[in-house]
Amino acid sequence: MKVNFTPGPSQLFYTVEDHVRQAFKNGIPSLSHRSKEFELIYGEVKNGLRELLGLPSDFFIFFTGSATEIWERSIQNLVEKHSSHFVNGAFSKRYFEIAGQLGKNTFKVESPNGTGFTSSGIVPEQTELIALTHNETSTGVSLPLSFINEFKTLYPQSLIVVDAVSSLPYPDFDYSKIDSVFFSVQKGFGLPAGLGVWIVNERCMAKANKISAAGGSIGTYHSLPVLLTSEKKNQTPETPNVLSIYLLSKVLQDMNRRGIQIIRKETEYKAAILYQSLEKHGLAKPFVQEKGVRSQTVIVAECRNETERISKHLAGVGLFAGGGYGENKKNQLRFANFPTHSKEQFELLVDTLNVL
Amino acid sequence: MKVNFTPGPSQLFYTVEDHVRQAFKNGIPSLSHRSKEFELIYGEVKNGLRELLGLPSDFFIFFTGSATEIWERSIQNLVEKHSSHFVNGAFSKRYFEIAGQLGKNTFKVESPNGTGFTSSGIVPEQTELIALTHNETSTGVSLPLSFINEFKTLYPQSLIVVDAVSSLPYPDFDYSKIDSVFFSVQKGFGLPAGLGVWIVNERCMAKANKISAAGGSIGTYHSLPVLLTSEKKNQTPETPNVLSIYLLSKVLQDMNRRGIQIIRKETEYKAAILYQSLEKHGLAKPFVQEKGVRSQTVIVAECRNETERISKHLAGVGLFAGGGYGENKKNQLRFANFPTHSKEQFELLVDTLNVL
Repeated sequence: MKVNFTPGPSQLFYTVEDHVRQAFKNGIPSLSHRSKEFELIYGEVKNGLRELLGLPSDFFIFFTGSATEIWERSIQNLVEKHSSHFVNGAFSKRYFEIAGQLGKNTFKVESPNGTGFTSSGIVPEQTELIALTHNETSTGVSLPLSFINEFKTLYPQSLIVVDAVSSLPYPDFDYSKIDSVFFSVQKGFGLPAGLGVWIVNERCMAKANKISAAGGSIGTYHSLPVLLTSEKKNQTPETPNVLSIYLLSKVLQDMNRRGIQIIRKETEYKAAILYQSLEKHGLAKPFVQEKGVRSQTVIVAECRNETERISKHLAGVGLFAGGGYGENKKNQLRFANFPTHSKEQFELLVDTLNVL
Repeated sequence: MKVNFTPGPSQLFYTVEDHVRQAFKNGIPSLSHRSKEFELIYGEVKNGLRELLGLPSDFFIFFTGSATEIWERSIQNLVEKHSSHFVNGAFSKRYFEIAGQLGKNTFKVESPNGTGFTSSGIVPEQTELIALTHNETSTGVSLPLSFINEFKTLYPQSLIVVDAVSSLPYPDFDYSKIDSVFFSVQKGFGLPAGLGVWIVNERCMAKANKISAAGGSIGTYHSLPVLLTSEKKNQTPETPNVLSIYLLSKVLQDMNRRGIQIIRKETEYKAAILYQSLEKHGLAKPFVQEKGVRSQTVIVAECRNETERISKHLAGVGLFAGGGYGENKKNQLRFANFPTHSKEQFELLVDTLNVL
């Protein structure tokens, strides 16, 4: 057995290989994106995501090439002049930088890597978009839902955009407090990389139309209005990654059959036993000190000089940890805790760690 | 047997299913795009494309989500103010429109659907980019290579960009006459959709840097300079469609083993017998009248009231023609003639047509 705990691309969801086999039988890899069959698949993704995430019906679901693309498109379509970013790691920082590269006035609330934020109440009045990275894949810090929910009341004029790349489908967001959320399929959904999913509400649509009407550039084939025109027919403006959209529809069915409550409970159980092991461990400890901001889906262990030894010890029984991110590559290990990772795999991981 | 002649997504290249099986065995669908293994795969695509297309070593090869994305990125990165477009169908028109949506001053040389162009000598002096659609997938018109090659001499100050979405790997371009060429993998290369390939030379890089230095917006993660920074490490800025890039590397090996000369000769043979059949046919005829601009890779038959009858007749023996494009949906049939379509399949197609 081999289990891949790298936080993305991670272990495939355990049904994916069967779905790929079935896809080839059914001609999905060469299916036209203008066919009725494709429209049905797009519809299944929409229904499946609404059910799994508890997403209200007034949210639209669009496809892009990656979540990186959504960083760019969201700034283009939702910000005329000013955006604010909560930055506490490499990925929230990159979202912030992209806004600057697109010529926006950006404001940054910064917190050291491995920590959360103390206050939501310091965003400039003129901010049109508040960017929150729910789960910093680089450090294993997760923003508490209560923190995310503060912004809507404090800044009713701003759009609240949540990067949930490495946390969904786990978090039980209150979608009345969020205007847009997005993810890519190679993490929690366990699919091959190459597809981003962008979820937006009517306020986002209105904003994009307003920017466009005022002569601003919101892009072309992947602007929100163009995406919506296609989405109304359950189509996409360009030829998309049809196979990946099909696989997403199938994995959503599998996950809904299992039930989101079970997926959430198991996620919390697996995170709890790993954090417990790290707390007591002689050679490693949780990188994130504050328990309230510890990620349930990407667990980072500070291992210092023991990193390589621990990594090899785990690999010896087929358990592959991810390295630390960036400068922490050789000091930390990262463990994805996604729906495809079973309780048994986490129990084996913890048992193997504990004998070191 | 079932053969899909729709011009894209088309029939898969005949080795793809085996390569997908092997990919799952080797963990490719969850391979990190920051791994050595991925870098080797990117390198194989570069070598494979250089060999197959006879591409000089001073051209760079980048990946995007689709060819539609390349329409947008090429205008963003290569045009400060002014682009010119040769428009003779739906796809060349869309490229032209995208330039307008991005706020550029656009000039259009228009020719009726189903025809080529009479003159290259009417592009405004200030044009920075000349957009040529080598093969109009909507109508089956292909620009002669001699026509494409005229522009470099006439407009040495402009960048010559060729959309070869539905023709590569067939055309034997003279790359000294072209600054950029692009395609998507679901047509001639017979792969599942979800990947665009953008090939540019140093002049394109210089232009993007110039626009950026002057304060123009060339985008963020998929600007040419950022793509190049990653490409130097055989990496991509974002998490890309790794599986598709792997499959492209494998299909390129297969095609190179076969040899581009054989692929070209077979393409011409298959096109010749189908055009010949249509010329003599009582119920259908070639839509493109002028032989010199007839596409070798997308062959369009004008069938009028007989369209449905012919389509059903072919489907009866497992041969699936594509419908006409747009308003010609019910008046025409389109036949892709890609490397995956064998001589035997085309002979069966022609024999089946001829008995009608």
